[in-house]
Amino acid sequence: MSERLILDAAKDLFYVRGFTAVGVNDLGAAVGISGPAIYRHFSSKAEILTTLFDEAMDRLLELAGPPLDDPRENLLALARTHAEFALRDRALVSVYMREERSLSDAERTRLRRRQRAFVDRWVRALERCAPDRSPDEIEASAHALIGMLLSAAHWPASVRGNVAYADLLVDLVDGAATRLAI
Amino acid sequence: MSERLILDAAKDLFYVRGFTAVGVNDLGAAVGISGPAIYRHFSSKAEILTTLFDEAMDRLLELAGPPLDDPRENLLALARTHAEFALRDRALVSVYMREERSLSDAERTRLRRRQRAFVDRWVRALERCAPDRSPDEIEASAHALIGMLLSAAHWPASVRGNVAYADLLVDLVDGAATRLAI
Repeated sequence: MSERLILDAAKDLFYVRGFTAVGVNDLGAAVGISGPAIYRHFSSKAEILTTLFDEAMDRLLELAGPPLDDPRENLLALARTHAEFALRDRALVSVYMREERSLSDAERTRLRRRQRAFVDRWVRALERCAPDRSPDEIEASAHALIGMLLSAAHWPASVRGNVAYADLLVDLVDGAATRLAI
Repeated sequence: MSERLILDAAKDLFYVRGFTAVGVNDLGAAVGISGPAIYRHFSSKAEILTTLFDEAMDRLLELAGPPLDDPRENLLALARTHAEFALRDRALVSVYMREERSLSDAERTRLRRRQRAFVDRWVRALERCAPDRSPDEIEASAHALIGMLLSAAHWPASVRGNVAYADLLVDLVDGAATRLAI
């Protein structure tokens, strides 16, 4: 039994039923072991959730790569990484968006610090595109655009799952940022 | 004890702790009655959640009002209603965004039908602004922009709660729709 299998099963179960509604016995059954056997790999269900949150952050940072020289290209490349991530791995993105309150206080504080570093990347990207906007407007715009891109994980089944929509989402960010710069 | 007080307490508790983690005893305690006394007003915790979903939909439809003649004004008025709703009543909007899976199958089907009518309003508004885009692109854009506006309910405490950000969000929608029409 690999930890990877447990994490993937947990991601799907938390996505479909929510963290609180899933027990270790459900997790064990999903990977063909007993519930208590889960504890050979993770100290608690909470540790599994924390690990998934760290994976989501790692993935976003890794996909983002280093900043680019051109302000617009830099922003649009960042937008593309979020769009593709949300369209490709909606279970992980949904858990990340919905289950923050299920983390322990200490873990939530730690993960918010990681998130902050990430939002700052967006803030810097938007500042370069719209230097006349106030810091408050830039901050709110960063959250709004991240919210738009990650919402792709929640789109109805008839719409989501088509990675070609990443182009469309990048266009929407481009238009929004152009309007910010007016 | 009014149903209104129970609904407001439930909205806040579901928002902070999640539907599954809140029991009828918690709901009773929040309004100063016993847990079982809740059942004099609602048949189940699920009925309370369903009522909150209907209220969120009612509020969005009521705020939207009838369509306007000018395509751009029509879209931006629609955007403003969502932005203001998410900034003003983030507990209700968050429950609406996060707890769909906590509904019964029958209620989820019924509420998705109501949501569909609402998404269609966005689809028609965007079609009028960007008539050359394909139906798939219009549909995905509708979900993306709704996702951006409702995400305001999840912004960090340092950013959200300022209704002046509705102007900013309307600008972002305006820019995105302008880009769609190119």
